[in-house]
Amino acid sequence: MASVWIREAKAGDCGEILRLIRELAEFEKLSDQVKISEEALRADGFGENPFYHCLVAELPPAPGEQPRPCIVGYGLYYFIYSTWKGRNVYLEDIYVMPQYRGQGIGTKIIQKVAEVALDKGCSQFRLAVLDWNKKAMDLYKALGAQDLTAAEGWRAFRFEGEAMRTLAGR
Amino acid sequence: MASVWIREAKAGDCGEILRLIRELAEFEKLSDQVKISEEALRADGFGENPFYHCLVAELPPAPGEQPRPCIVGYGLYYFIYSTWKGRNVYLEDIYVMPQYRGQGIGTKIIQKVAEVALDKGCSQFRLAVLDWNKKAMDLYKALGAQDLTAAEGWRAFRFEGEAMRTLAGR
Repeated sequence: MASVWIREAKAGDCGEILRLIRELAEFEKLSDQVKISEEALRADGFGENPFYHCLVAELPPAPGEQPRPCIVGYGLYYFIYSTWKGRNVYLEDIYVMPQYRGQGIGTKIIQKVAEVALDKGCSQFRLAVLDWNKKAMDLYKALGAQDLTAAEGWRAFRFEGEAMRTLAGR
Repeated sequence: MASVWIREAKAGDCGEILRLIRELAEFEKLSDQVKISEEALRADGFGENPFYHCLVAELPPAPGEQPRPCIVGYGLYYFIYSTWKGRNVYLEDIYVMPQYRGQGIGTKIIQKVAEVALDKGCSQFRLAVLDWNKKAMDLYKALGAQDLTAAEGWRAFRFEGEAMRTLAGR
């Protein structure tokens, strides 16, 4: 099996990244929520002050094999700020195409995120997972993550759309 | 009662902000986790590329009243990135001193965060709350927030310390 290469995404990868973002949202049963465009991903991630950073898992095409998508997974992260610990990393998305799972690609992406975080002086990184995604939760726990919703009772809240405008009096 | 003013924090407020960060962590029963210093808060929030932004609730001292702390609450936020909706705001901390609660100060901070978010082209803002903090959850819901842990099953995970170093092979 050809070895997977985890590398930083380039602007030209945004089409493939958007394809995977949509696949992940479908997997999460929340695909109606994807409103982002390839152009926005390119502008937001590859300008002077990027709003996010992205790692991609690339599988080189092997001779004699059927053509296949080159990018088979991604991890999208950005820097956040903890008032307890200072600068930290948040892994917003991590996804590996179903036919490429079970080869440790997700683990490689998480390892790379940990490297980046440590290099940038961060002492932790956070992520969120859906409670029915037992495979993902088991992997994160096996790699040493703590389930803060179970351990401390953290719940995620979100304001959007109409609620936001009402709050702002608009 | 003197009216509360919500304003952007200045570098000189970091001592007061740290006092409130510690009070909030005590309220959350997690005060052993606070490792940040006033100097780090100042460097991280008030340099050229600030890692966070902060709003403070200031109560002007009234004549004839006992001296009291000027800053009675804060909301600390930063910009995050949703692969569904693009740039968004995360409200990391929101806190009002116990003796100043019930006057709508928390609501004013949340309203200001919604204004900032809309001004910056964000369509949503997220925050996290501890499941035993029913008063806070009730307030956020009353203001229109959705509990994503209840609605969609999101759980918060965190890697830190030894787990991070093991992942990075260090």
